[in-house]
Amino acid sequence: MKIGPNSTRQTSISTATPDQIVIRGMDLCEDLIGKISFTQHTWLLVTGTMPSEAQTRALDAALVAIAEHGLVPSVQAARVTYAAAPEALQGAVAAGLLGCGSVILGAAEAAGAFLQQCIDAGGDRRSAIEKVVSDLRSQKKAIPGYGHPYHKAHDPRTGRLIEVARELGIFGQHFETALLAEKVIPEITGRALVLNVSGAIPSLLLDAGYPLLGMKGVPILARTASLIAHILEERNNPIGFALTEAGSDVISYSGEVPEGFVERTGE
Amino acid sequence: MKIGPNSTRQTSISTATPDQIVIRGMDLCEDLIGKISFTQHTWLLVTGTMPSEAQTRALDAALVAIAEHGLVPSVQAARVTYAAAPEALQGAVAAGLLGCGSVILGAAEAAGAFLQQCIDAGGDRRSAIEKVVSDLRSQKKAIPGYGHPYHKAHDPRTGRLIEVARELGIFGQHFETALLAEKVIPEITGRALVLNVSGAIPSLLLDAGYPLLGMKGVPILARTASLIAHILEERNNPIGFALTEAGSDVISYSGEVPEGFVERTGE
Amino acid sequence: MKIGPNSTRQTSISTATPDQIVIRGMDLCEDLIGKISFTQHTWLLVTGTMPSEAQTRALDAALVAIAEHGLVPSVQAARVTYAAAPEALQGAVAAGLLGCGSVILGAAEAAGAFLQQCIDAGGDRRSAIEKVVSDLRSQKKAIPGYGHPYHKAHDPRTGRLIEVARELGIFGQHFETALLAEKVIPEITGRALVLNVSGAIPSLLLDAGYPLLGMKGVPILARTASLIAHILEERNNPIGFALTEAGSDVISYSGEVPEGFVERTGE
Amino acid sequence: MKIGPNSTRQTSISTATPDQIVIRGMDLCEDLIGKISFTQHTWLLVTGTMPSEAQTRALDAALVAIAEHGLVPSVQAARVTYAAAPEALQGAVAAGLLGCGSVILGAAEAAGAFLQQCIDAGGDRRSAIEKVVSDLRSQKKAIPGYGHPYHKAHDPRTGRLIEVARELGIFGQHFETALLAEKVIPEITGRALVLNVSGAIPSLLLDAGYPLLGMKGVPILARTASLIAHILEERNNPIGFALTEAGSDVISYSGEVPEGFVERTGE
Repeated sequence: MKIGPNSTRQTSISTATPDQIVIRGMDLCEDLIGKISFTQHTWLLVTGTMPSEAQTRALDAALVAIAEHGLVPSVQAARVTYAAAPEALQGAVAAGLLGCGSVILGAAEAAGAFLQQCIDAGGDRRSAIEKVVSDLRSQKKAIPGYGHPYHKAHDPRTGRLIEVARELGIFGQHFETALLAEKVIPEITGRALVLNVSGAIPSLLLDAGYPLLGMKGVPILARTASLIAHILEERNNPIGFALTEAGSDVISYSGEVPEGFVERTGE
Repeated sequence: MKIGPNSTRQTSISTATPDQIVIRGMDLCEDLIGKISFTQHTWLLVTGTMPSEAQTRALDAALVAIAEHGLVPSVQAARVTYAAAPEALQGAVAAGLLGCGSVILGAAEAAGAFLQQCIDAGGDRRSAIEKVVSDLRSQKKAIPGYGHPYHKAHDPRTGRLIEVARELGIFGQHFETALLAEKVIPEITGRALVLNVSGAIPSLLLDAGYPLLGMKGVPILARTASLIAHILEERNNPIGFALTEAGSDVISYSGEVPEGFVERTGE
Repeated sequence: MKIGPNSTRQTSISTATPDQIVIRGMDLCEDLIGKISFTQHTWLLVTGTMPSEAQTRALDAALVAIAEHGLVPSVQAARVTYAAAPEALQGAVAAGLLGCGSVILGAAEAAGAFLQQCIDAGGDRRSAIEKVVSDLRSQKKAIPGYGHPYHKAHDPRTGRLIEVARELGIFGQHFETALLAEKVIPEITGRALVLNVSGAIPSLLLDAGYPLLGMKGVPILARTASLIAHILEERNNPIGFALTEAGSDVISYSGEVPEGFVERTGE
Repeated sequence: MKIGPNSTRQTSISTATPDQIVIRGMDLCEDLIGKISFTQHTWLLVTGTMPSEAQTRALDAALVAIAEHGLVPSVQAARVTYAAAPEALQGAVAAGLLGCGSVILGAAEAAGAFLQQCIDAGGDRRSAIEKVVSDLRSQKKAIPGYGHPYHKAHDPRTGRLIEVARELGIFGQHFETALLAEKVIPEITGRALVLNVSGAIPSLLLDAGYPLLGMKGVPILARTASLIAHILEERNNPIGFALTEAGSDVISYSGEVPEGFVERTGE
């Protein structure tokens, strides 16, 4: 049965013979294993070209910055899932990644698109930002990459990623735009919202030449490492059921009850 | 409601204040971002300690070796899922990872356990291997880490990972045991089965000091990078529906049909 | 750490004591188990009220109509995943459901929203449809619920669901609007696109009083039953790897190769 | 590339022409839509034959019994995932289902296998149960289907399912065995463990003739309905982030901290 558009029926990522595996035009065993880092390999897989030293270090910095931040929703979903289904570590990782969505973690892609839109508008950068921010505000949408519920005054990862961009000599128009927007936002919204790590990552990586389309993959890959670490800790020191027990305890039932129902507390 | 065993209700992976994020006892911004690679960070997250240079390069080599091998089942599941649900890249990655199971990819952990069992048995290594292999065979179980449906005569990644282990000076008893088992297996089973990449990875990493419990995370993390690359290619050059169309075409219906049913071909 | 908006911290779906389980205000053991069907229970869970006989039969008809349609993408993803990871049936079901997205299956919700929009516009229905269809067309968006790649001339399930709506005495403005739109679409787009099952389901269910917000759950629940059936067949008669092999065979590699690379065919 | 065993490359679940859809030998539109319930359809899909009235009602009772039980781990995982990724309802359902594992919910299949093992042993039933329970105990494994962390004295669903089995005239050797085991267990383990809903469901359904292999699908399908209801509630009345906030609050950090680190409370 045929569904969807015709396609070229081609892939350009890899091919193999029984003796040789080719990835992005290179021989996996001759050219890549033991010669490049996993971060270089990721850049190669995603973009088709080998990264420069600065590009590798920028991607490393972004991945390290976003990998781990405690018992965040994706981690809790993964640990709870592992507690219930320890036969499938991959299922617990998958459950965690399913929470890398538009509200959490996925914001890196939206923030990158925001920066790109401000830049592509051309003309005066400040005016462009003002227009994009005003449009978002009039649609009652959040400004992606700004504000953090915990790191309210400043997101410490952002400051460090700015330093990294400067150290690598790649600080450019995307990061400039992001920082300018941080100044413009309170003028328009009346609220100071700090550039957060999900805004700093596309600033750094777009300046480094990493493609916007690949941005959502960055927090997903980074978080995978963190999820694996948490699931291994869960195996040795389970807290999954304690997490859900605590969750249940703060939510009360507000629906109807049958006649004669007696709630028992302290269970 | 309380489910499951009491727990210590502790985590030792990370904590934070609004100004500082601590990961495995280190300051994320001061000590890690821009200073270590993502592979070092992964080792740190999983084990709690910073890897040596050789350990980092061993983990890099393992991740690069297993990340990508064309349109394998996990990649097809991810591309098909993305074609059907392009609104959620994370869902397509999750669908791909769900296929990192005991038969495919997950074999690295089972192979590591096999090696560990042969070593922990003590005594003569060859005798230990013979016993473990014979036991698996009598239970009609596969020997994890041996044999490959496509790389039948040799898995090119294995040879390269042996070289890497030697280059890094960490070639040790796990890899020795794996290669000895490769010789013993045909004597017992009558079939030559090559040490494949899923057997070579735990050989390398256990020799490097990476924990057996973390082994399944290696192919999962590696494959995540590959899935992201394939999903981005799918976005630009969709083949997802062509894959399922081809799948349907090779499967015939063997059930009953209602009276008067006329199969129409060429649809 | 606090993320996201404050909430009321309430749920009205269920509560329990050690002796009694309350669901939507009713006693699970006294009132529901053995007394209502799973379809009635689903309606109760989703809407909070017990369905009428006609509502139950409408939901049954919709679930039966959309559950199964052969080796569709979601089924292939599930079977491939089970073949690779047989230790986790739930993972294979999850992989299949992840493909219930905006392009496939998820269209029922979008089609329902389309119908609602045409109705809510008020005034002349035909004019309202013309406007909504024209708007979609000018945005180069598909008209959700219309056209089928295989059932091109008519979707047999649609005709049957119209009959069911009439038998149940609930055929109303949503189905009327859907059928009127089927006539209007070719006048505007120049292409005849049949009302498909994903358009017929919200027509039937919105006329029955099922909430639009719950529409996406209908194909998801229905498909779960089908995925379970396919995974059990996969257990006894595996075709998962045959599906991926067939997929790989129709896709060619279009990237670079290293010097000296010799493609070997017939593998 | 070829992976895995040769297969017959056949399916017997469904086939179609552009005009007709055949499911398990029946015409979907003529024979099924509007004529059978979703529960009958599920039985037909899974087993290949149409259920009797008693079989349908038994499956309905089992699905209703296990669908919903408040903010259990799978529900929390789903709600948290939806809060983070509201663009993909199917992802939140999938995250919830991934927690239908061997510890939670999946126990129905293991409990059914336990009963089958006791019955297949032949000879005196009590002796057979004593042996199987003793074996599990010596392996320090839980007895699947017995004990509940909340419904300690009795699981109210179990009593009701016994009544249903009797009302339907299908109470048979599986349920008898399950109740006999409930008596035997404290004699061997010294602990009274009540037959819980995950033990009562296979008792009922195996007596009804439902296949053991399909048992795990029952809680998965049932829970899907509940997950959809919870996700819709989450959309209107979000508690996902409150759940994770409460979870974080009960877990303390037990790892190292950098010199000078000052924990700030009350954040």
